[in-house]
Amino acid sequence: MKQRIITMTTDFGLKDPYVGAMKGVILSINPIARMIDISHQVPPGGVQTAARVLMETHPFFPPQTIHLAVIDPGVGGPRRPIIVCARDHLFVGPDNGLFWPIISQDPAVEVIHLTKVTYFRPIVSHTFHGRDIFAPVAAHLSSGVNPRQMGNRINNPVRLGMDRPHQTESTLAGKITTIDRFGNLITNIRQATLTEFLGGQHPVIRLGEWVTTELHNQYTDVTPGTLLALFSSSGYLEIAVNQGRAADAFKEDETAPQGREVVVEKR
Amino acid sequence: MKQRIITMTTDFGLKDPYVGAMKGVILSINPIARMIDISHQVPPGGVQTAARVLMETHPFFPPQTIHLAVIDPGVGGPRRPIIVCARDHLFVGPDNGLFWPIISQDPAVEVIHLTKVTYFRPIVSHTFHGRDIFAPVAAHLSSGVNPRQMGNRINNPVRLGMDRPHQTESTLAGKITTIDRFGNLITNIRQATLTEFLGGQHPVIRLGEWVTTELHNQYTDVTPGTLLALFSSSGYLEIAVNQGRAADAFKEDETAPQGREVVVEKR
Amino acid sequence: MKQRIITMTTDFGLKDPYVGAMKGVILSINPIARMIDISHQVPPGGVQTAARVLMETHPFFPPQTIHLAVIDPGVGGPRRPIIVCARDHLFVGPDNGLFWPIISQDPAVEVIHLTKVTYFRPIVSHTFHGRDIFAPVAAHLSSGVNPRQMGNRINNPVRLGMDRPHQTESTLAGKITTIDRFGNLITNIRQATLTEFLGGQHPVIRLGEWVTTELHNQYTDVTPGTLLALFSSSGYLEIAVNQGRAADAFKEDETAPQGREVVVEKR
Repeated sequence: MKQRIITMTTDFGLKDPYVGAMKGVILSINPIARMIDISHQVPPGGVQTAARVLMETHPFFPPQTIHLAVIDPGVGGPRRPIIVCARDHLFVGPDNGLFWPIISQDPAVEVIHLTKVTYFRPIVSHTFHGRDIFAPVAAHLSSGVNPRQMGNRINNPVRLGMDRPHQTESTLAGKITTIDRFGNLITNIRQATLTEFLGGQHPVIRLGEWVTTELHNQYTDVTPGTLLALFSSSGYLEIAVNQGRAADAFKEDETAPQGREVVVEKR
Repeated sequence: MKQRIITMTTDFGLKDPYVGAMKGVILSINPIARMIDISHQVPPGGVQTAARVLMETHPFFPPQTIHLAVIDPGVGGPRRPIIVCARDHLFVGPDNGLFWPIISQDPAVEVIHLTKVTYFRPIVSHTFHGRDIFAPVAAHLSSGVNPRQMGNRINNPVRLGMDRPHQTESTLAGKITTIDRFGNLITNIRQATLTEFLGGQHPVIRLGEWVTTELHNQYTDVTPGTLLALFSSSGYLEIAVNQGRAADAFKEDETAPQGREVVVEKR
Repeated sequence: MKQRIITMTTDFGLKDPYVGAMKGVILSINPIARMIDISHQVPPGGVQTAARVLMETHPFFPPQTIHLAVIDPGVGGPRRPIIVCARDHLFVGPDNGLFWPIISQDPAVEVIHLTKVTYFRPIVSHTFHGRDIFAPVAAHLSSGVNPRQMGNRINNPVRLGMDRPHQTESTLAGKITTIDRFGNLITNIRQATLTEFLGGQHPVIRLGEWVTTELHNQYTDVTPGTLLALFSSSGYLEIAVNQGRAADAFKEDETAPQGREVVVEKR
């Protein structure tokens, strides 16, 4: 019996006993499985948010970690339960686009449609496949079961239209996709994309009325309370306030980013 | 030294260091104990809520799991600290009705009044028995100490008046007892009770002004945004909205269900 | 490879994947490390709050536990990353006063300035040293690396001006520093300080308009709904309501105590 890590990302919150039930199911199958919570506070049905979380966090875990992700607004419907073997990690959850960024970046990806009910709970409800399908499958994977034993390979996983920046010769326009607990406004503009766009020129960065011509390295580059642009710890363009909340300055609500546009031009 | 699972259910929240202190106490006694959080966001003093959580989640854990539950508004007063051995699991916490649903459903139940102070922390506070009595007792149980060594058997545990549906020949009237993170309204009407009541006839289900004559299997049976009645993953009648929040439709607050009545009649 | 406990205290919240990323980093270095969350809901930048949490919780953990604490508003600036070896525990985090109460109470304390980059992640960001410096250092400590190998001893750690009670011959004036989930108002007046101040006389305790001449032992000493003064489970003077919320009675917000004064006089 192996002890492999299972990470968990869901929109179940922490008030209800849903996550606890999943952990009980896992431990009943593999008593030595290690479970690590990534987040259970993905907005309900927030497939885009969870797709970003998975993309950004899986590289910090050891190879062959199992990432259990249950954001499943289509539970009970025709959407398929899948395992994705990609980038030397395993991902388990619904085939609703959640894993598309992972799938699309690994040419050697294998996607398995979970069909072998012997790896599910004996009775599968219509409303909680996290507990009845995905948790037991993750537990069996953590015990060393080969994913190929659990179903058939498919080649048409559901794609997810991720919000990507629009680029012209003179402008790079992205949007705010994430607001973190500190009120930092994180965009979908990657550092590499921005650097290539600028090609050595200086940037002019606009968010609403606010404009800056500087890209800083750290919060402490500016005086406390001042807005600045820098790169987030995940490598995206971020608008922040040193020791303050950029979200407040722009009347943004942490739990529901309005998707406001951030535009970069060359100076 | 054994590695047995200890689940934790409290009303301590996650902001304060109370849960962390309990875990430190447990690890100081049994460094290899495994602790699984069920919920720490039971409403303060919410004995009914926690009783339901324990009843619904313990079956997902392996036999001989220790369920540590601290919803303890009477801490420091005359209420007894107890261990309940029932349904092949162990439950540790205050004797205030929390374990009554578990106790009342197992004719072979044993309830032990915790009296042996050697299993407590050396100094027991008047305000935090979770840390000073229940956590150390759970830790010693996880190391293999026999519950019978820890105190004396009692036969009069505190009972809990659970809200149960009222049934006449023509109506079955329950109430909404739980609202989950998705805004699903979960009643106290069990699937088995409803099936027996209907005796093959079709239902008419009413919640306030809203009425339905259909019991669905899954959320996706109706178009997104539509109200429906179905059974929850724990087997209770539930009013939900496919990809939406029934709580919003009925102006219910997730953290404080108003206990509204749901009435089922035969068609 | 050793399995030592790593506790975690941060202001990262549970919505964002920051804590998950840190755990992945730790497990990638020491796959058998045990991680225990103390709190991730310290107010953003709340160095005083976290300092209190660390001081109150570390004694409940086994000797040689590693306490990873990341409240780091100065990340990327000149503040030093440190390890504190004190009171038979290890503390890892930024040198911003967080560990001052620990440092100042152990004459045999050793503070190490972390300079050996081999114990950091290969690329260190400017905005997330929790992930790139403190988590890997904690992981290496948990594997048994000697803290002295990781940097140079320093003698000038940053001090933290903790709010302490003011005492005259006739009054002891403290303030409310913490409001817990139950709405209990916890002051900075230690039981020992108050007992010494009173010198056997009876107290008169005032908070705003409210006054009491009794120090109770437990909540249940008064009828439900009644205000009382007693000592918290951590040994501080606390104003509470039996089965109710003192915070509501005094219009205090749980997440932002106003620092109101509590005055004790001798009767």
